[in-house]
Amino acid sequence: MSKDIPLQKYGFVKRDTPRKINLDPLQTGGILTPEANQALMEWGDGYSVCDYCAGILDEIKTPPIFDFIHKALPEFLGCDQARVTNGAREAKFAIMHSICKEGDWVVMDGNAHYSSLVAAERSRLNVKLVEKTPSPEYRIDPEGYGKAIEEIKESTGNVPSMALVTYPDGSYGNLPDVKAISRIVHSYGVPLLVNGAYAIGRMPFNAKDLGADFIAGSGHKSMASCGPIGVLGVSNEYAPKVLERSKFNKNKEIESLGCTARGATIMTMIASFPSVYERTKPENWQKEIENARWFSSELENMGMRQLGDRPHNHDLMFFETPVFYEISKKADRYFLYRELKSRSIHGIKPGLTKFFKLSTFGVGRENLGMVVDAFKEIIQKYEA
Amino acid sequence: MSKDIPLQKYGFVKRDTPRKINLDPLQTGGILTPEANQALMEWGDGYSVCDYCAGILDEIKTPPIFDFIHKALPEFLGCDQARVTNGAREAKFAIMHSICKEGDWVVMDGNAHYSSLVAAERSRLNVKLVEKTPSPEYRIDPEGYGKAIEEIKESTGNVPSMALVTYPDGSYGNLPDVKAISRIVHSYGVPLLVNGAYAIGRMPFNAKDLGADFIAGSGHKSMASCGPIGVLGVSNEYAPKVLERSKFNKNKEIESLGCTARGATIMTMIASFPSVYERTKPENWQKEIENARWFSSELENMGMRQLGDRPHNHDLMFFETPVFYEISKKADRYFLYRELKSRSIHGIKPGLTKFFKLSTFGVGRENLGMVVDAFKEIIQKYEA
Ligand SMILES: Cc1ncc(COP(=O)(O)O)c(C=O)c1O
Ligand SMILES: Cc1ncc(COP(=O)(O)O)c(C=O)c1O
Repeated sequence: MSKDIPLQKYGFVKRDTPRKINLDPLQTGGILTPEANQALMEWGDGYSVCDYCAGILDEIKTPPIFDFIHKALPEFLGCDQARVTNGAREAKFAIMHSICKEGDWVVMDGNAHYSSLVAAERSRLNVKLVEKTPSPEYRIDPEGYGKAIEEIKESTGNVPSMALVTYPDGSYGNLPDVKAISRIVHSYGVPLLVNGAYAIGRMPFNAKDLGADFIAGSGHKSMASCGPIGVLGVSNEYAPKVLERSKFNKNKEIESLGCTARGATIMTMIASFPSVYERTKPENWQKEIENARWFSSELENMGMRQLGDRPHNHDLMFFETPVFYEISKKADRYFLYRELKSRSIHGIKPGLTKFFKLSTFGVGRENLGMVVDAFKEIIQKYEA
Repeated sequence: MSKDIPLQKYGFVKRDTPRKINLDPLQTGGILTPEANQALMEWGDGYSVCDYCAGILDEIKTPPIFDFIHKALPEFLGCDQARVTNGAREAKFAIMHSICKEGDWVVMDGNAHYSSLVAAERSRLNVKLVEKTPSPEYRIDPEGYGKAIEEIKESTGNVPSMALVTYPDGSYGNLPDVKAISRIVHSYGVPLLVNGAYAIGRMPFNAKDLGADFIAGSGHKSMASCGPIGVLGVSNEYAPKVLERSKFNKNKEIESLGCTARGATIMTMIASFPSVYERTKPENWQKEIENARWFSSELENMGMRQLGDRPHNHDLMFFETPVFYEISKKADRYFLYRELKSRSIHGIKPGLTKFFKLSTFGVGRENLGMVVDAFKEIIQKYEA
């Protein structure tokens, strides 16, 4: 073994970004609850949950993984069967890989996350995107799914083997009409996968009400969990394929390679679950929407423009910010990042000034007010 | 949303198994270092490492993920390219799925872990096992690979697209002659995947020295990391296929679905790395082997029998224990588990008395002596 590795660089590394206020869409829903932090300390060791495992991770009774996966999660998600995965993308891949055959087609919304496209690519599928409407709305017209299916049928003789919709998408926070999409794709016999990475754990969500055959959620994005972890939901109709067991080992599901969240990650999801359940109640989500709308209107009063659904129905928002772009021409493109960082406001990507996305989830009206004030101060300072 | 979920069951759950001494083969190499525990607290939040990500997880400079994955890991593993995955099985699947085509054949040792078989099954490959020698040795004869390849060639007209060897296997802790296996499979043009889940992070390991084209390791099993996390190594020859980028997004590798250890898991691996590096040095590993051999001989003096390689070369050992089995007929099959638990000795599966496997890794001579004394006491107590 070589002696050339400079070991002093590794070991414990501090996380030094100030983040008293965090607006990073990737992070607002994944901040751990105190219970999840406690669970991490308790269950951090490798394979900690495997002590009482008789071969099937989701059937472990102590800790209560069985009840969580077979009772709480299906009820919470409104689906027949649920599993934990290593993330939303891993759930999407498992679903596509088990349901579709190499060379099949899948239809997705034009706002689909790259990980949906890559999951299809890894499954060796062809992808057709349903166009979004032009700026500033970027909406997905449900009829677009019918059109896309017809086109695939015409050129290949077959309907696609799956449709996917992103609810909401990760750029604009738009909530498409999933029920209408479901009705349309089902009329062609095409099953629907709802990517709820930004919904499940933040807002009310029910797979059956939406008409979803499959759902994917993200624990580290929206369920206050230490990742990588996600959830997969499937209807009884498709469960035999998605959850098929190995011919080599009757305890092990093929698509999960036997076990997924084999350690602390599942315990953090369980630890945060009561809080996550609470925050997704309609009355609590309503407050989040009100905060988002208030924040959006404050920014618009300063000359910025919120794209996507208006009025907005989600905490993830995309803003066009010409006022900051003009300043960046005089200052430099990192001025906004620096100014916010000095105020301990985190989450707008360094270097972005012309437009940016952010999330108001869980930030609270008081802190959002501080962000609004910070924006005002910064504009005044540089326009002076 | 239903109100039927009994939330009080979830939240923080204590881990109450006494484990002052832990012999669980799954766990001995995955116990977190103090640095890894600290890293967990610091980086637990979802997507915590993504702050300075420009789109490629393994190129993040702060924290030093780029240096770790592109410099330290390849050097440590003796391979050209390395990546982190969600575990050893996920690494094996990524390698098989990218290198082999549906319907291809793969040859594996008869001691292969179920997750290697399931990875092949998920890749829709045919598996041929190289027989192990009968009890008590369970050895893998390198010539068996040549025979298996010839048979596949004869019946299909083609050589298999991959060979896999488990080094060491997870049942007996046997270390097969990988160099000889590599020479044989390479003479047929077949590339070799070494599953080092129980080697990498415990003992000296060098992919090139072994003649491996691909390697898989497990962070939560053997690298003192909070899982799920693993490592994948690949030679420059095969890297373009295994690490191929998406046509939809030039930053994202297909087999990783874009990102794998997107959070605390990678930071715990980095935190433990200096210790892991240290413990795998030949002189430290030699002490582990001596402890294992000493422990084995003590148990044999009590009438138990260690199967597999003798003298043994790894901390994972399988024992036939007729003395406990005889007692279980008078007492019950949980007596051993209860007796050990009351002494805070953890890791032998509840209910096993006829044979069991255990690991002496990192337990230390003093604690191993306490286990030996405990076994003696238990035998005396029940034989009285
Ligand atoms: C809409 C959307 N779906 C899926 C994902 C991926 O989630 P995960 O990391 O759980 O795979 C993201 C991540 O940014 C996303 O924005
Ligand atoms: C020999 C062997 N390989 C692979 C694995 C799986 O490791 P991971 O959990 O990292 O996928 C195990 C787990 O027990 C094992 O014993």
